[in-house]
Amino acid sequence: MNDDPFINRGYSTQESENPMRGAAYVGDGRIETITTEQVDPGPGETRIRVAYSGLCGTDLHIAHGNMDARVTTPLVFGHEASGTIDAVGDGVDDWQVGDRVTVMPLLWDNTCAACLAGNQHICQNLTFVGIDSPGALQESWTVPASTLVRLPDDMDLRDAALVEPTAVAVHDVRRSELQVGDAVVVLGGGPIGVLIATVARHAGARVVVVELDAARRDRVAALGFEAVAPKDIEATVADLTGGNGADVVFEVSGAAAAVRQATALLKVRGTLVVVAIHSTPREVDLQRVFWRELRILGARVYQRADFERAVELLATGVIPVDALVTSVVPLEQTGRAIDELASGAALKILVDVASAEGAPA
Amino acid sequence: MNDDPFINRGYSTQESENPMRGAAYVGDGRIETITTEQVDPGPGETRIRVAYSGLCGTDLHIAHGNMDARVTTPLVFGHEASGTIDAVGDGVDDWQVGDRVTVMPLLWDNTCAACLAGNQHICQNLTFVGIDSPGALQESWTVPASTLVRLPDDMDLRDAALVEPTAVAVHDVRRSELQVGDAVVVLGGGPIGVLIATVARHAGARVVVVELDAARRDRVAALGFEAVAPKDIEATVADLTGGNGADVVFEVSGAAAAVRQATALLKVRGTLVVVAIHSTPREVDLQRVFWRELRILGARVYQRADFERAVELLATGVIPVDALVTSVVPLEQTGRAIDELASGAALKILVDVASAEGAPA
Repeated sequence: MNDDPFINRGYSTQESENPMRGAAYVGDGRIETITTEQVDPGPGETRIRVAYSGLCGTDLHIAHGNMDARVTTPLVFGHEASGTIDAVGDGVDDWQVGDRVTVMPLLWDNTCAACLAGNQHICQNLTFVGIDSPGALQESWTVPASTLVRLPDDMDLRDAALVEPTAVAVHDVRRSELQVGDAVVVLGGGPIGVLIATVARHAGARVVVVELDAARRDRVAALGFEAVAPKDIEATVADLTGGNGADVVFEVSGAAAAVRQATALLKVRGTLVVVAIHSTPREVDLQRVFWRELRILGARVYQRADFERAVELLATGVIPVDALVTSVVPLEQTGRAIDELASGAALKILVDVASAEGAPA
Repeated sequence: MNDDPFINRGYSTQESENPMRGAAYVGDGRIETITTEQVDPGPGETRIRVAYSGLCGTDLHIAHGNMDARVTTPLVFGHEASGTIDAVGDGVDDWQVGDRVTVMPLLWDNTCAACLAGNQHICQNLTFVGIDSPGALQESWTVPASTLVRLPDDMDLRDAALVEPTAVAVHDVRRSELQVGDAVVVLGGGPIGVLIATVARHAGARVVVVELDAARRDRVAALGFEAVAPKDIEATVADLTGGNGADVVFEVSGAAAAVRQATALLKVRGTLVVVAIHSTPREVDLQRVFWRELRILGARVYQRADFERAVELLATGVIPVDALVTSVVPLEQTGRAIDELASGAALKILVDVASAEGAPA
């Protein structure tokens, strides 16, 4: 799909001159701590000393073997990272050692119809760093300088690990074209749901979050959102909108029932943004789509503007990092953290890549 | 839903001072020619001497009893009409006896959230003339002057009976926001499909029509469109777009299989317009919607601008009236015409309302 030399650069588990620790998916649904080799940055590349890398649903899919057809093992995964540049390759003029950065983990071909139309982020031949090439769960990470996004000097690198998921939320909200005062429903109260709700509220929307799990509802409510069970949302939206329906619904749950509910909640000419991955086709009430002239929009990843806005939102304290980050674990506990994520008990787990297990914090 | 006195005005089949003929749905899936009473226009109303009224899929639904829960019988139906004003009520200043008109058969409440947002055509309490109140299949038809749309003096009233379905097509194409040069697929080669294809081509699009029925395909091809079977459309679109996918797909067929195909045909950020009525929820590939950031838009009826544009397109010969109108029948044959429409053999059937069966043409 892409002949960029960065793609599928190999790993060594043999003796090497510059060994370092990494967390990798090694196949068969297993995560292991491996020894891999530090890579000197080639032309146009930079090397990052990784501070933190967050774990997300995609990492869960990789770890559970759902993406075995796509990934090459061992795969050092992870793509929600923060860190500091520790080496720059030839031809990299805009970055210096010591710069604090996060990474927008997309590589596009710049030649397909989607790229030529300005939609590089959904390039027809897009590759994703941390899935199709090595990710952030290693002590140092070599990436094309084109993927770097600058962080303010005084920004906490722990907070900065939330830039990537926040950029997803910014993209989703921008895509919805919501207006100040709009009534917004977020279906799903996980990390992305909370981030979308936060970004939408900051943009002036009145937001309700729908979440099946009572403990998650409590967490969402503690952030000042109205959080209701699926069975209560129709009445809530009717109250909120005088019976007219929501302006925007974000489908973040991935559940078939949520899709059925989404179209019922929308006002005439309302917008449904499909954020979640639905692995099988879903029944959609197209009669309602027709009758109310609804709009359904897919929203995937992010553009550079979304990353830059996400940095701002984190730097200015808009994003409730403390509530979202339910634990920070050392690299060696990545596998256990994935299990905790799968259980649904955690929201966002960060891997502290720099500190070894048992080492002083 | 609406306390407008125009709604549900009764009919008389008893002796009356001003009897006239009408075609009505009388319940139990039956169409009959009835004697009804000419209605003097009240304040704000006008009376039209009806020339032609076209039959459409909605009329078929009424005639087959599918809308029994909504309609009051006997219902004089029909809403694709042309005619000449023969009386005007008090307070009607813009219209005179002799004016040639068609009717935009929508009545909105002007108070609901949809109306206040400028979407009167999909008013939350919309009523439809010819469904919720008497329609055009009668010798004279009294309607609010607000529904009238002016026809050029030299326009054939037979052609003018196609303004309403053409306005549907104009609305669908406007809603799609298609651009000159776009690759467009129309799923379904019936009258609305052909009209959408025609309007889209006139707007500069490259159009392919998909139709299962070979005879219909031939008719569409005779109008200069590429017309293909569903099994061939993916290859056709790949050829047409260099493998990138269609810019816009119009779903006009109402078939579940067409919905599945629609998302597969679209390019990154392509648009699917849902024109057909899907009476049950349909499986939609939301994964594809997400992955390619597709847009799905419902499109229902029309706005005044669509009617005015439709009049222009018919007046300037853009719409292939002769190919679309497969027969013209007298009022007394309305029931038989409905049967012919149901068989799928006809495209557009016009009822010549003025001429009685057996009378000289």
